[in-house]
Amino acid sequence: MIIVMSKDAAPEQVAAVVTKIEYSELKTHLVYGEDNIVIGVIGQTERLNPEQIEAWPGVQRAARVKHPFKLASRDFHPATTVVNVGGVKVGTGKPVVIAGPCSVENRNQILESAREAKKAGAHMLRGGAFKPRSSPYSFQGLEGEGLKLLAEAREATGLPVVSEVMDPVNLHTIAQHVDVLQVGARNMQNFHLLKELGKVDKPVLLKRGMAATIEEWLMSAEYILAGGNSNVILCERGIRTFETYTRNTLDLNAIPVVKELSHLPVLVDPSHGIGVARHVKPMAKAALAAGADGLIIEMHPHPEEAISDGKQSLTPAMLMELMNELAGMFPSAMVSETV
Amino acid sequence: MIIVMSKDAAPEQVAAVVTKIEYSELKTHLVYGEDNIVIGVIGQTERLNPEQIEAWPGVQRAARVKHPFKLASRDFHPATTVVNVGGVKVGTGKPVVIAGPCSVENRNQILESAREAKKAGAHMLRGGAFKPRSSPYSFQGLEGEGLKLLAEAREATGLPVVSEVMDPVNLHTIAQHVDVLQVGARNMQNFHLLKELGKVDKPVLLKRGMAATIEEWLMSAEYILAGGNSNVILCERGIRTFETYTRNTLDLNAIPVVKELSHLPVLVDPSHGIGVARHVKPMAKAALAAGADGLIIEMHPHPEEAISDGKQSLTPAMLMELMNELAGMFPSAMVSETV
Amino acid sequence: MIIVMSKDAAPEQVAAVVTKIEYSELKTHLVYGEDNIVIGVIGQTERLNPEQIEAWPGVQRAARVKHPFKLASRDFHPATTVVNVGGVKVGTGKPVVIAGPCSVENRNQILESAREAKKAGAHMLRGGAFKPRSSPYSFQGLEGEGLKLLAEAREATGLPVVSEVMDPVNLHTIAQHVDVLQVGARNMQNFHLLKELGKVDKPVLLKRGMAATIEEWLMSAEYILAGGNSNVILCERGIRTFETYTRNTLDLNAIPVVKELSHLPVLVDPSHGIGVARHVKPMAKAALAAGADGLIIEMHPHPEEAISDGKQSLTPAMLMELMNELAGMFPSAMVSETV
Amino acid sequence: MIIVMSKDAAPEQVAAVVTKIEYSELKTHLVYGEDNIVIGVIGQTERLNPEQIEAWPGVQRAARVKHPFKLASRDFHPATTVVNVGGVKVGTGKPVVIAGPCSVENRNQILESAREAKKAGAHMLRGGAFKPRSSPYSFQGLEGEGLKLLAEAREATGLPVVSEVMDPVNLHTIAQHVDVLQVGARNMQNFHLLKELGKVDKPVLLKRGMAATIEEWLMSAEYILAGGNSNVILCERGIRTFETYTRNTLDLNAIPVVKELSHLPVLVDPSHGIGVARHVKPMAKAALAAGADGLIIEMHPHPEEAISDGKQSLTPAMLMELMNELAGMFPSAMVSETV
Repeated sequence: MIIVMSKDAAPEQVAAVVTKIEYSELKTHLVYGEDNIVIGVIGQTERLNPEQIEAWPGVQRAARVKHPFKLASRDFHPATTVVNVGGVKVGTGKPVVIAGPCSVENRNQILESAREAKKAGAHMLRGGAFKPRSSPYSFQGLEGEGLKLLAEAREATGLPVVSEVMDPVNLHTIAQHVDVLQVGARNMQNFHLLKELGKVDKPVLLKRGMAATIEEWLMSAEYILAGGNSNVILCERGIRTFETYTRNTLDLNAIPVVKELSHLPVLVDPSHGIGVARHVKPMAKAALAAGADGLIIEMHPHPEEAISDGKQSLTPAMLMELMNELAGMFPSAMVSETV
Repeated sequence: MIIVMSKDAAPEQVAAVVTKIEYSELKTHLVYGEDNIVIGVIGQTERLNPEQIEAWPGVQRAARVKHPFKLASRDFHPATTVVNVGGVKVGTGKPVVIAGPCSVENRNQILESAREAKKAGAHMLRGGAFKPRSSPYSFQGLEGEGLKLLAEAREATGLPVVSEVMDPVNLHTIAQHVDVLQVGARNMQNFHLLKELGKVDKPVLLKRGMAATIEEWLMSAEYILAGGNSNVILCERGIRTFETYTRNTLDLNAIPVVKELSHLPVLVDPSHGIGVARHVKPMAKAALAAGADGLIIEMHPHPEEAISDGKQSLTPAMLMELMNELAGMFPSAMVSETV
Repeated sequence: MIIVMSKDAAPEQVAAVVTKIEYSELKTHLVYGEDNIVIGVIGQTERLNPEQIEAWPGVQRAARVKHPFKLASRDFHPATTVVNVGGVKVGTGKPVVIAGPCSVENRNQILESAREAKKAGAHMLRGGAFKPRSSPYSFQGLEGEGLKLLAEAREATGLPVVSEVMDPVNLHTIAQHVDVLQVGARNMQNFHLLKELGKVDKPVLLKRGMAATIEEWLMSAEYILAGGNSNVILCERGIRTFETYTRNTLDLNAIPVVKELSHLPVLVDPSHGIGVARHVKPMAKAALAAGADGLIIEMHPHPEEAISDGKQSLTPAMLMELMNELAGMFPSAMVSETV
Repeated sequence: MIIVMSKDAAPEQVAAVVTKIEYSELKTHLVYGEDNIVIGVIGQTERLNPEQIEAWPGVQRAARVKHPFKLASRDFHPATTVVNVGGVKVGTGKPVVIAGPCSVENRNQILESAREAKKAGAHMLRGGAFKPRSSPYSFQGLEGEGLKLLAEAREATGLPVVSEVMDPVNLHTIAQHVDVLQVGARNMQNFHLLKELGKVDKPVLLKRGMAATIEEWLMSAEYILAGGNSNVILCERGIRTFETYTRNTLDLNAIPVVKELSHLPVLVDPSHGIGVARHVKPMAKAALAAGADGLIIEMHPHPEEAISDGKQSLTPAMLMELMNELAGMFPSAMVSETV
């Protein structure tokens, strides 16, 4: 860590900073600049909080030299993590595709979705039973009944299922029925939930918050890893910007950056990212070209009748077309390895 | 609601939209433009979701004419809501000041904070017992012990206490010890929590999420109101922008906009908003000048030793100075009405 | 255009709006909603400014149904425009690559750059002679001398050259020496410059401003088109967001959106977009996968000695590797058609 | 400046960095951390570009310790600059108010505006003769004729006039007619214009770009100061965010930050900042409470008939009411000093 003292810091303020730091069993090294004294801090600096040190008298700025995440960092874990979801491996270099509707609406809809996803070559089924909705007057999901229908769809097709968990209260119920626990963008910093997910023996799909920095996203993964669950899959799903032609701004820049910083696999959700069904295909292709480990795509047998997210849902035919084009672009890749 | 059909929409697509809408017991009215047909929808359109309608064939765009919030809207509740917190009234036009540390750290610290807040003329005490922290390695709060110390501080000073609730799990424990339940920015769309808060008989301080639109913020308030709890206080605490000199960008534009749209009182948190102690005073004054119903300010007896948020915490002397200047600016206002 | 009257608009205010609109030789059509009257406006509404109409008494909101751009719109020009730059065609579906250094620094550097660009298979050379720099103390470009060196590099390699024009003052000098006039992000709304470019007989490469909406970007193209110059190439180069790991946030969502709204070809600049040389390759591949008509890439013979943008410049070897990978991904495409 | 070498930097890379730096007649000082070597650079580091150094082999990150602006910095010019505009002093601590229409539309309109501004107690008149408009089909200003009308309005009332200059081409014509040259948000980084303004003997009102960081804004002021013109007045006018209820997001956080970093006076433009006439008053009061040196406010005798910006223009009566309330809040302040 680097601590820049302000131009007019008194010698006793510099001495106080050095003493406090060395009291924490870290070493300091002073550089005398023309205007400022800079204090280099050497040792296990993860415990120090730079924002806190900026509250000390005479300190102008404190900045980390090392990243604040450790278990999520590729520095200490050079090989990419492969997460095995019921035989589907995420992170091998061969893209994985998860497809399905926003919400589980009824038995026919989810079974038809599962069959169409399977037919198109998708590797897992998505579908929400508990839905975060910005309006209290909107459909909130089939809840327990939805979980049962998802399990039935898995039986019928063999596809592992992914579904969202919104808080610790019903985490264990959901975990019994699904193969991957999804954390939505709005819950990326629901820290109690993250801690509980650290104790669960199920893979977690951690979506990036819509205004979360890459560092905050990796720190949220760190919560789950630190709790003991090493099966974390990241998912970029668009950030919020000023643009109004699209629902969100899918941030593909995050893919190469995260792949460099972290060993965790990263999926991309182009459906929420751009929010318009007819633009999902180009963004899906771009995501894989940027190096993503796979995709999560909204598909509904009848988007115009969907209870939620119809505007961004592909039809089964559109999904089939997308899968064919992806197979053309990544010929060796689109057969996800199965144990 | 207005539905704009695309330029090349077929007559049967127009007919299908009209039929679906009228099937929902709403009326339609067609306007034939030069290029597009526009369908006006008349009646209780709250149930309709414009994004969903945009998934219907031939529809180019759907937009509400009315706001999606109802209980939070001033249209149906012209008088400003006054929330009574143990005798301190929020929303009367006389600013209310809540002061105290980010976290409850120990008995001395919180008791000294409470006495200093009282001495400076603050009306309530803040202090976190359960802390949302972006790093799993940071201090997570004193939890249950912190709640007891807050209750003791209230006993000692008579100041009602405000503390954060992070999820439904320990909501009821916290509700027993504090006077106002604070929902942090990261939990503004933790919908299960919002629903549970709707059932509680305690005022809720609902902070705006750091990338939340004003409409989303009011929809989150709507969740609590729709659950049956009408004592909601809004709190602007800064949004995330590209600027790096400040921690967040305190958005005072939200004050006149929210005061016009909604009857709920609105506080401002300049400490998190700008994130630098020496800039809190000008932002606090600006907040009241913009029409806020009060302030929530971080103050710590010894900011340089604070476990969290020291950089943005006022000293007791700085709080006193701020309160004096506010009293000068708003002479008739700074004595908050007490029952 | 749709004009929503406010809930409490007086009948005479509604009548005044209707009269004003019809006075402009447009027709109106009234829809009586439960709470609001909505006025549909029919005819050539381009002349109306919705923000202005929102200043009329009793008006709550005014919104366009049609886009404000016309010459740039695909609605009236369904075929994609192909811009011919000295025989290199942009917009045919076969990607075009422009490569070269940020600034022309000296004779050796630009000639070596041109040869390396040519060798790697790039179709045009880029290089700045007039440089927009955020600091007055930074290198501002070789100016006239740089233009001559660019012309020499074109002679030596046959590659058409692209260079930035910063204001109308030296537009004509630059136009004499280069094949494409680049408008930088900071000048996207330099309207006097845009008007002058409308009168010039040279293709224009119009970069998107870093906080420009897609609509504003297309309106800037409209200025050039309206002036009489139909050879406009758009270029996405990253928008400004809160993320700090990258220089900008390359917005690939803009590609499918612009390709749908407009007939103009669109390039992508991944070098400025992500700002880190080792991340340029994945973003370049993603850009073409998203449907871009080509790329503009910073390459410098010795990035570590570059006067500007060294951090984001590829070496010649990195450019060669990228071109090979692109050729693998888009086998039929990477031979840009030449007359 | 601090240069952090990457974890796996080779000793010869460290040596090369040190050699390059010392070759520039600066001193280096090495700190050996547990994982990284950090190089402190001592001396006149303004010439170094940290982004460029990040292109050197083995360098992970380079960061300034000192600000990149010098002439604009309060470090070397502790007293606030007072800019004298025809006897009206900006920066004395007594707020200055500039009022007037967006555009000069005709003789009656600008003369009436001037008289109403004078009557309300404003200290200067604003009015655009050359207008930057996002659409080529919108009114572009009366140009030369508008400048003459502004001069006539000054004659009639004695109020100095402020008007926008859009590029170097007609800078000198405008400078002959007006008292303050305004640089609009879209031109904040029109560097050629800034250089020319450095040579002019007229005060410049430099608006902040809508996505400009505070540092970039001060660097643009540095261009003018470095050119020899020390009469620069800054103006905050709102940044672009995701919020859609307001036109922009007026960023009052910038006021205390800029007042600390720089000695230049800062005005606030609440009209463009929030973009809705009925919300201008609270934002204007907040701006002064935050410490701004004054306001620039759009006022039109008949906003509903304004050619531009009617939605955000106060009526003369609203301006009068605002001025009265400001005088109540800042009793000693509202009489701007006149020579």
